[in-house]
Amino acid sequence: MHFTSEQRLDGDVLERAFTLGEIPGILWTPASAAAPTPLILLGQPGGLGLRGMYPRLAARARSAAADGFAAVAIELPGDGDRPRWAAAEQARADLRQTLQAAGPVPDEIVDRLILPLVDRAVPEWQATLDAVLALPEIGGPVGYSGGVISIGIRLAVVDPRITAAVLFAGSFIPRAMFAEARKVSIPLHVLLQWDDEGNDRQAALELFDAFGSADKTLTANLGGHTGVPQSAHEAAAAFLARYLNQR
Amino acid sequence: MHFTSEQRLDGDVLERAFTLGEIPGILWTPASAAAPTPLILLGQPGGLGLRGMYPRLAARARSAAADGFAAVAIELPGDGDRPRWAAAEQARADLRQTLQAAGPVPDEIVDRLILPLVDRAVPEWQATLDAVLALPEIGGPVGYSGGVISIGIRLAVVDPRITAAVLFAGSFIPRAMFAEARKVSIPLHVLLQWDDEGNDRQAALELFDAFGSADKTLTANLGGHTGVPQSAHEAAAAFLARYLNQR
Repeated sequence: MHFTSEQRLDGDVLERAFTLGEIPGILWTPASAAAPTPLILLGQPGGLGLRGMYPRLAARARSAAADGFAAVAIELPGDGDRPRWAAAEQARADLRQTLQAAGPVPDEIVDRLILPLVDRAVPEWQATLDAVLALPEIGGPVGYSGGVISIGIRLAVVDPRITAAVLFAGSFIPRAMFAEARKVSIPLHVLLQWDDEGNDRQAALELFDAFGSADKTLTANLGGHTGVPQSAHEAAAAFLARYLNQR
Repeated sequence: MHFTSEQRLDGDVLERAFTLGEIPGILWTPASAAAPTPLILLGQPGGLGLRGMYPRLAARARSAAADGFAAVAIELPGDGDRPRWAAAEQARADLRQTLQAAGPVPDEIVDRLILPLVDRAVPEWQATLDAVLALPEIGGPVGYSGGVISIGIRLAVVDPRITAAVLFAGSFIPRAMFAEARKVSIPLHVLLQWDDEGNDRQAALELFDAFGSADKTLTANLGGHTGVPQSAHEAAAAFLARYLNQR
């Protein structure tokens, strides 16, 4: 893990850009934390890249820092300056075409779009966790928040270091992920935008039902994909604070 | 409105029992509030009566007082020491029999059980509001919280003094209430217990969809009817505080 730049943000947050092998990322830490801090993995949607998502990620990181938590984001495979791969580009083009024709999105397109992304992104998150948790100022526990929901699901299943997760039911969900959802056992706070254009409400409700966690909350708000109200962000932050402060 | 007894609870809350005509009720006010306080109407399920519900109502009133709000509860028609009426008793007996036979509950039983209760309870809530808002220590705005959801819906439609409502989707919902739900326009925070024995989850989701409010949130938690977690109570209280403090 190589830090490539460093700046101090308002509100006493240290922001450091890094590369981990070929993966660019950003780490935010509360500058004045006395003890090793818990960590939140900030997920993001595919397509915009770290640069496009920076304002929203930095706002979430500031909020995490105010709660005493570090936060980290990494560039998704195929986003930003990372190499594209042909199959993913093809799946995106097929999705775009289907949506333009206002047709239902076939499962096989969703599978081609999401499953290879999950297969690539999850080990990268785990490598990032290895590196970040090795820093003296970060101590865990670790929460996951937002982004492509299937990545959050897989991470929650395979990595026991993840203590609690905020999942945003706002992306297409491969049917295969329902079986993985049943294996999730950590506390979950699931966000749903009731009129999300890019999401099937019924599938999201079924997914919530499928999660194996004994402690799970669904919070649905009126509005489209980008309309998550401030109160919902605050409730999600309060959820993570409840679990990440249990040291 | 005649106050019949008065006591001071821990946490500096003044609790006064009252009668309003034939309706018994309890009013809780923050004892040391300097200005006229907002008010929360505490709904309750049918059947237990004010006496059976007292510990839970008092806990909710204490929480409201800690936020600076007064709270009031009244005995539902046919509950506690209030006169029973034959049709309601018959509807309850029919419901019990249907549930014992583990059959689906026919709409006509739900209608007989709920609609007359709504017709009677809502004017009583409005008379209570008239009386309580006439007290110098209570100033509005007014929120409604919990209890039989159909009563909350009707109140939200017919009484413009209600500013915001927390509705618990935990009771049978007559089909006729869906049309009324579309007329609700105030901010709503809807609670749903995902595995509620006495509630149809799909109907609750449809009801949430039907509400006309532009600002509505559904919070679903794993568990049965009585399993609403503390975090959900806190989120509901935070919702009311957001709207009742806007003076």
